[in-house]
Amino acid sequence: MRALRWDGTRLALARDVPDPVPRPGEAVVRVRLAGICRTDLEITRGYLGFRGTPGHEWVGDVEAGDDPGLIGARVVGDINLACGTCPACVAGLGRHCPTRRVLGIVEADGALADRVVVPCANLHRVPDGVPDRDAVFVEPLAAAFEILDQVPTVTGGRAVVIGDGKLGMLVAQVLSGAGADVRLVGHHAAKLERARRIGIRTDTPAPGADLVVDATGAPDGLAAALALVRPRGTIVLKTTVTAAHRVDLAPAVINEVTIVGSRCGRFSPALAALAHGRVSVAPLIDAVYPLDEAVAAFAHAARPGTLKVLVDARS
Amino acid sequence: MRALRWDGTRLALARDVPDPVPRPGEAVVRVRLAGICRTDLEITRGYLGFRGTPGHEWVGDVEAGDDPGLIGARVVGDINLACGTCPACVAGLGRHCPTRRVLGIVEADGALADRVVVPCANLHRVPDGVPDRDAVFVEPLAAAFEILDQVPTVTGGRAVVIGDGKLGMLVAQVLSGAGADVRLVGHHAAKLERARRIGIRTDTPAPGADLVVDATGAPDGLAAALALVRPRGTIVLKTTVTAAHRVDLAPAVINEVTIVGSRCGRFSPALAALAHGRVSVAPLIDAVYPLDEAVAAFAHAARPGTLKVLVDARS
Repeated sequence: MRALRWDGTRLALARDVPDPVPRPGEAVVRVRLAGICRTDLEITRGYLGFRGTPGHEWVGDVEAGDDPGLIGARVVGDINLACGTCPACVAGLGRHCPTRRVLGIVEADGALADRVVVPCANLHRVPDGVPDRDAVFVEPLAAAFEILDQVPTVTGGRAVVIGDGKLGMLVAQVLSGAGADVRLVGHHAAKLERARRIGIRTDTPAPGADLVVDATGAPDGLAAALALVRPRGTIVLKTTVTAAHRVDLAPAVINEVTIVGSRCGRFSPALAALAHGRVSVAPLIDAVYPLDEAVAAFAHAARPGTLKVLVDARS
Repeated sequence: MRALRWDGTRLALARDVPDPVPRPGEAVVRVRLAGICRTDLEITRGYLGFRGTPGHEWVGDVEAGDDPGLIGARVVGDINLACGTCPACVAGLGRHCPTRRVLGIVEADGALADRVVVPCANLHRVPDGVPDRDAVFVEPLAAAFEILDQVPTVTGGRAVVIGDGKLGMLVAQVLSGAGADVRLVGHHAAKLERARRIGIRTDTPAPGADLVVDATGAPDGLAAALALVRPRGTIVLKTTVTAAHRVDLAPAVINEVTIVGSRCGRFSPALAALAHGRVSVAPLIDAVYPLDEAVAAFAHAARPGTLKVLVDARS
């Protein structure tokens, strides 16, 4: 089969990759669409030392596997491959299993390929009304919904999302849907215009926000968030900067700010939001490339101003 | 009257300071004992640009003021001088009033003097059974109790306190009293020995703590805390480092750690704990200097290995 491969120095499409063989409890998924995420770009800059097939945002059809009821189903899947038995897993937090692999990120081949192997327990059926181009956003949308699991008091509050990229636009919509009064802050006029087109307000926020989400992906995001949050307010940190950077945390102590690190989320609220049309994701798509041109798709995704680039594995 | 004065370059005892004149709503307190805190030492290194009389840990007797019922009372007092009318004040969080002055720290003379002026509303009577040498610890002890107001789920959890200074020892006792299994981590053998003498466990903590408190006062405290906390655990940041420093927050995002900035606290739980003998503070006292020797007291407080140095304003 075909698979996009990263060997630590070069990204290339391989055409002779053996079809994956599922182990007990696993399913083989024929990929329909896969998205390219900022983490994928970071991987090609050395993030986490990953080698293999990237791709952790995807939708596809179950071709084979242990669970006969799943064969033929259109699915998305949680990317954390957890042990299932440790205290974190037993507590329902396989996303924090200390020995987890992560699809396309840590020691597990991802979905920028014809086929990907995923544990059956990780799969979620995609409701019929949700097109592939929406379903492929479930993973990042789940990461946006994760904020609601971590910060219970969003409704009625003033929220600011810093970062006009894909994740920032998803987070802004999720917080709006939860009843917050949301402003999106960013540096890119074209992206902000696209945000406004899907109903996100981008006028300058007043300082003193109850909740500020740093979705900048940049080292200075936290300082910007600290300047906007009220005393005793909450900052959600979505930015994983790969190296140590300078930050002054004294304002967080003096103002007793709570800073919440936030990563992946549960798929079910994200799927429900897509099924009920409560978020708008298709306007974030810039381009769709065939799998044969996945290397060019990466180059496009890395261009400034780009939001989401998809790869179609059926072409 | 006498008052210790910091003019931005020099710390000196002045003997000709006019007695303070209370405004409506304020009381004049004759100081008994005052403590020297790390913040006081930082002030003499330029922290917050303070000029005037330092000292925000104190116990004394009300000499004069609007409230006749308070005259003669032995009191301690909240150091945040709030406006009383802004949204933060109305919400009971005068400690976060944006225009607050802070006794001995921000635009208000403190208690390293014969007399100090404090709003009557800030005063708390000291229960008869609490000696002065305990009462003078109410302010830092309230800062330790603040953690219980901010982190509700301490009971039954595993907690680590990093930093074997005064605050670390108070925090360790408060968390133990709240039902946590606590370890104190520090670098100073003599301080750790004193911690053990007041019942604080100092054996090496296992990683994966539910709660880690950074009371190091040092820039590397947060990184040490991140290494000890479990995924989805909580770090309380008590360290105010006055300059930006390098920190890698990626582990906080990946492990979805919550970092809670924490500063001053309510006095009532601290006073109650002292009244009921639930914390042991007197063993933290290294020396008591007369007010005339307050400059020497500061020098002593700055010596490595020192815990608490007190100044007696009645001698």
